[in-house]
Amino acid sequence: MVNAGAMSGSGNLMDFLDEPFPDVGTYEDFHTIDWLREKSRDTDRHRKITSKSKESIWEFIKSLLDAWSGWVVMLLIGLLAGTLAGVIDLAVDWMTDLKEGVCLSAFWYSHEQCCWTSNETTFEDRDKCPLWQKWSELLVNQSEGASAYILNYLMYILWALLFAFLAVSLVRVFAPYACGSGIPEIKTILSGFIIRGYLGKWTLLIKTVTLVLVVSYGLSLGKEGPLVHVACCCGNFFSSLFSKYSKNEGKRREVLSAAAAAGVSVAFGAPIGGVLFSLEEVSYYFPLKTLWRSFFAALVAAFTLRSINPFGNSRLVLFYVEYHTPWYMAELFPFILLGVFGGLWGTLFIRCNIAWCRRRKTTRLGKYPVLEVIVVTAITAIIAYPNPYTRQSTSELISELFNDCGALESSQLCDYINDPNMTRPVDDIPDRPAGVGVYTAMWQLALALIFKIVVTIFTFGMKIPSGLFIPSMAVGAIAGRMVGIGVEQLAYHHHDWIIFRNWCRPGADCVTPGLYAMVGAAACLGGVTRMTVSLVVIMFELTGGLEYIVPLMAAAVTSKWVADAFGKEGIYEAHIHLNGYPFLDVKDEFTHRTLATDVMRPRRGEPPLSVLTQDSMTVEDVETLIKETDYNGFPVVVSRDSERLIGFAQRRELILAIKNARQRQEGIVSNSIMYFTEEPPELPANSPHPLKLRRILNLSPFTVTDHTPMETVVDIFRKLGLRQCLVTRSGRLLGIITKKDVLRHMAQMANQDPESIMFN
Amino acid sequence: MVNAGAMSGSGNLMDFLDEPFPDVGTYEDFHTIDWLREKSRDTDRHRKITSKSKESIWEFIKSLLDAWSGWVVMLLIGLLAGTLAGVIDLAVDWMTDLKEGVCLSAFWYSHEQCCWTSNETTFEDRDKCPLWQKWSELLVNQSEGASAYILNYLMYILWALLFAFLAVSLVRVFAPYACGSGIPEIKTILSGFIIRGYLGKWTLLIKTVTLVLVVSYGLSLGKEGPLVHVACCCGNFFSSLFSKYSKNEGKRREVLSAAAAAGVSVAFGAPIGGVLFSLEEVSYYFPLKTLWRSFFAALVAAFTLRSINPFGNSRLVLFYVEYHTPWYMAELFPFILLGVFGGLWGTLFIRCNIAWCRRRKTTRLGKYPVLEVIVVTAITAIIAYPNPYTRQSTSELISELFNDCGALESSQLCDYINDPNMTRPVDDIPDRPAGVGVYTAMWQLALALIFKIVVTIFTFGMKIPSGLFIPSMAVGAIAGRMVGIGVEQLAYHHHDWIIFRNWCRPGADCVTPGLYAMVGAAACLGGVTRMTVSLVVIMFELTGGLEYIVPLMAAAVTSKWVADAFGKEGIYEAHIHLNGYPFLDVKDEFTHRTLATDVMRPRRGEPPLSVLTQDSMTVEDVETLIKETDYNGFPVVVSRDSERLIGFAQRRELILAIKNARQRQEGIVSNSIMYFTEEPPELPANSPHPLKLRRILNLSPFTVTDHTPMETVVDIFRKLGLRQCLVTRSGRLLGIITKKDVLRHMAQMANQDPESIMFN
Repeated sequence: MVNAGAMSGSGNLMDFLDEPFPDVGTYEDFHTIDWLREKSRDTDRHRKITSKSKESIWEFIKSLLDAWSGWVVMLLIGLLAGTLAGVIDLAVDWMTDLKEGVCLSAFWYSHEQCCWTSNETTFEDRDKCPLWQKWSELLVNQSEGASAYILNYLMYILWALLFAFLAVSLVRVFAPYACGSGIPEIKTILSGFIIRGYLGKWTLLIKTVTLVLVVSYGLSLGKEGPLVHVACCCGNFFSSLFSKYSKNEGKRREVLSAAAAAGVSVAFGAPIGGVLFSLEEVSYYFPLKTLWRSFFAALVAAFTLRSINPFGNSRLVLFYVEYHTPWYMAELFPFILLGVFGGLWGTLFIRCNIAWCRRRKTTRLGKYPVLEVIVVTAITAIIAYPNPYTRQSTSELISELFNDCGALESSQLCDYINDPNMTRPVDDIPDRPAGVGVYTAMWQLALALIFKIVVTIFTFGMKIPSGLFIPSMAVGAIAGRMVGIGVEQLAYHHHDWIIFRNWCRPGADCVTPGLYAMVGAAACLGGVTRMTVSLVVIMFELTGGLEYIVPLMAAAVTSKWVADAFGKEGIYEAHIHLNGYPFLDVKDEFTHRTLATDVMRPRRGEPPLSVLTQDSMTVEDVETLIKETDYNGFPVVVSRDSERLIGFAQRRELILAIKNARQRQEGIVSNSIMYFTEEPPELPANSPHPLKLRRILNLSPFTVTDHTPMETVVDIFRKLGLRQCLVTRSGRLLGIITKKDVLRHMAQMANQDPESIMFN
Repeated sequence: MVNAGAMSGSGNLMDFLDEPFPDVGTYEDFHTIDWLREKSRDTDRHRKITSKSKESIWEFIKSLLDAWSGWVVMLLIGLLAGTLAGVIDLAVDWMTDLKEGVCLSAFWYSHEQCCWTSNETTFEDRDKCPLWQKWSELLVNQSEGASAYILNYLMYILWALLFAFLAVSLVRVFAPYACGSGIPEIKTILSGFIIRGYLGKWTLLIKTVTLVLVVSYGLSLGKEGPLVHVACCCGNFFSSLFSKYSKNEGKRREVLSAAAAAGVSVAFGAPIGGVLFSLEEVSYYFPLKTLWRSFFAALVAAFTLRSINPFGNSRLVLFYVEYHTPWYMAELFPFILLGVFGGLWGTLFIRCNIAWCRRRKTTRLGKYPVLEVIVVTAITAIIAYPNPYTRQSTSELISELFNDCGALESSQLCDYINDPNMTRPVDDIPDRPAGVGVYTAMWQLALALIFKIVVTIFTFGMKIPSGLFIPSMAVGAIAGRMVGIGVEQLAYHHHDWIIFRNWCRPGADCVTPGLYAMVGAAACLGGVTRMTVSLVVIMFELTGGLEYIVPLMAAAVTSKWVADAFGKEGIYEAHIHLNGYPFLDVKDEFTHRTLATDVMRPRRGEPPLSVLTQDSMTVEDVETLIKETDYNGFPVVVSRDSERLIGFAQRRELILAIKNARQRQEGIVSNSIMYFTEEPPELPANSPHPLKLRRILNLSPFTVTDHTPMETVVDIFRKLGLRQCLVTRSGRLLGIITKKDVLRHMAQMANQDPESIMFN
């Protein structure tokens, strides 16, 4: 089709179809795009601009603008994504504190901001500045005691319910696509699927607002996945401003890949990790040009966020850590154990969550999404408040768990018994015996771990924005910190054991429990998402040193292997599968010994393939064929006898062309012969005016022989991004394989239900 | 062909060809591989192992070993590449100093090692320890004065000539492929080309030894590119130990991609940069699995190198830097200027170097490689010695240029006039006026810059191992440091100028000349190689902070744009082109409006396509056809009249099959009919025994229609890694397009000589 213009137009009949008509080249909702065609169309466009640019200076400037538009879009995405991330961070900060109290001087101040302006400047008193009042102080003027506690508890639950109701209602009413993490759908969209409105302006707005609400109210969810969705909405918005991207679904996806990188970049403050995440996890078609542009967008976004400085520490990263001791080879054993834990958690989570989501889809449960959110919120708030580790926001919890216990640290986790003779150097504190606080923290953390594991399974997939990174990391960080403290105390009390003797002398600082928390977080995140390189790089950017890459890698690899042993699918693939999207994963290897002939349709016993002939069918014949079938396109053959293939016509374009011709071209009636050849067929004298349709004929349909192994076919579909492929034997057309057929065959071969692939 | 076994074997004739015969599935030297076929073969192998693994425990263990062999190979590559890099570093260190003097206590100590054992422990005197003697001290007992200087000068030249002669002779005699940087050839090999011996054991050995020689003798070349070659040789060596990789050219290339990453990882101490370099610059087929494995290999290599600790500072990186001041927006202007300089240098270098190399190839000059090396070495040594900045090794020079002038720095470049009232804080030194040393350094650096620019053009491409990274970086670092000192002095003396007023108050430390050197180095390296993301990431890993990514990126982007404006090819592509390798660059965009029919052969007026018929040609006919043509394969059609395609037979396999059949199968004579069908054709009673060749027939040859746009064809060749593609129209065979045809067509469209593509 792409080059039809080159060979038509010389006919003696008026061929109005040489002029493009509206909607040609677009796709229907919930359909797959044809990458090759999109690419051809872009090259055509590019060629036109290049040849025009020599005509005048204005055209030359326009061609320059066109060439630069990609960078401009990246810049805009980076700026907007960074700004939104900063605004979300600030708003979350304020609203999280609003559940506990309010600032008297200005109600829009968060606890920390409120007390900055206070006169109490000593470090310890800063938390207790008079301007900040807990709800109990404000309402009944009591700050201590049981009744104050209960009042604060009630206010906490009330606020949580209010936020939850607001969030789920906003999503329900304005943007149903704003729920969930969005990454499964974005993966599907990037692989070449159309979901209209998924990245629309309303989704952007509502997701941003509701994200603030849900993150503040303390459910077990994070903002990282949704931030990727938000960034992709920004990408979609800006690409709609430039015709280069808005009119080409393939080019638009290049922009979206880069936007995903920018999203992760601001979520973690890790630009390189973001680019690798987009490359490894999200994107489908990732040319080198996109790599470079993604990097640019990710950097701009990171720097915008840093300029907004929401964490008030001019650090780019979410959890900045600095450890003072190296790790030792013997520690690899607990690290690998954490990897195993991460893998098991990943498997457990994916299985339970998918089972629960399937139940929600198939039973009456799915009909009450608002009630579900309210109930889960209420339960979460009621259970979470009494335990300090579940009451605080999840990212604060992770931050605390990652931290090394310095000399100035006052948290319960750092309540070690200090040697009174010690001269307190700031950095190099030897291992110490645990105090009461640490033991209290241990059982509180254990309860928090169980709570987080259970509640996350039910939270992820509700009809509100919900990310999975932070809860997964929290589970891992809690487990890791507990293991770390265990190893530390073991090493302190048993210096003489063989396993410690070589590397941990008394009075030395051997074990950093914070590092264990970090390793555990990486393992759990890896188990759930099956990220590898990008995960390690994100963690590397958090710590900023190569030192700890080996522990992180050991845990990530172990976790992936353990989880893969129970099932190859990560959580995102599992959700794609659950929704029946036509997603051809680049990571899946197809190793079965089937041939194209086993997959193509028509199968044995089925009616023959619906084809068009090049010059013998009437408009009515075609209209009947279109009405009676729901195929996306029809092969065009020389004649029904020879079955020699000459091209392929899309259903959508056939319909549009016939409709157009009937309206605008004289003499086209139901009896008109339709022809796809250069010259009109020879017709009897009184026959009606024939209809030339060569312009919508794709003269280069993709073909394979019936003996082609399916693994090659899968490879071709994957790498070239085809929608369908025709099957021939010795030059004769035998059948057709669509992307849906390929996916259904793959599902069948993997002993899954082929009917689970629902879209084309 | 891959599934021929599935449908043959049921004939009533003995079909001995169902048993594989030797050499089937291998390729000839200087030929292109067929990626799809390699992939199919690997899947076959994998399938066989999986089905066998259920038979017995031993087979199950074997299948596990097979699955793990990839990781084992990566581990081994990392260990060997890291070790070799460490050994090379240590040897270079020693031999570089050998040109200046010798250690009396042990001649195998380098200057630094020699003086470690000395008693002079003060910082300034360490360089002048008595155990280390310059040649003049040793030979004539003079350490100062003109005659000592001349003697040292002569010794320097003598050693350089000796090393040069040794190096070039070793390369000439033992391993001609050990010369050059190796990256162009590795790119070509990874894209699917066979150059036997290029990654062989001899090349590995000789390249390692000669690399030490040439880097030590002070020519303007680096060890980074050759280290990539060395690492790839390691990869090839280890992959030959496992049949999974040794017998499959496609799988072998996955290992080589990872090895290239390990090479860069040890060259710069930048594992992530190495992986991205492999992805962006070197590799062709880079699945996600390879990404992960490359990362592993790169990390192992980096840690091995760190354990060897050749730089004695337990730093992983080649040039570790730490700056104390941020950069300011106004500085972007000089950074972009450096980018422009880098782009111009890249263009100049590529043009001049290619012109010189072409002259070497085409004139008598190329016949005296030894003489050429000796002459260039002599000239380099004579000019380099008097200037301290060219006498020291290039990486030391870069290191010095990158350095920030701390309070303890004693180098000439840090000879600033200190304020006597200053209390000398270690880190935060304000901008100071330059002293005499800095001015001397400036003109010496200017001379060094001119010298490096000229001599590098003549050095790169000689018949010795020679990398380009370090000389390019040196050019950029010199230019950058000079600009940096200029800006610094301007800012110091003219605080009141508008451009400085906002960010540089008197007494502040505004400008870091070392940062300019680093930016300049990145710009020049980018101009020559056109690396982008990997370049920035390598530099990021050198500095270890996100702070300076924006200056680096600004310079790298500017440099790429400026250089691209003068010609799209980087130095490696230019050398690939010069050598006529069939390299289909993923970065080249093909935007012309030609069709498959314009490119396929036979062209108009040429004799018809040489085809085989499925069941009517005799053995003799085929042998004649093979003798008279040099095509790599022949399409098989039903009959010459119908021209309906049924498959494709490789020339090499036809020859092998006929040879085998004539030797081992009874009744096969020149008159025997060859048939590719399942059943033998019906023959007259007295005709000789027919020869069944279905096993070597590829039943799924790739076809496109004659109307397919060439951009689609190029895309298919690129993404699927085809060797050839058949062209049909309405099911009839019209012609064939080979990779060489595609490349020649692309060259023609770019107004280049199509005959420059020499191999198939």
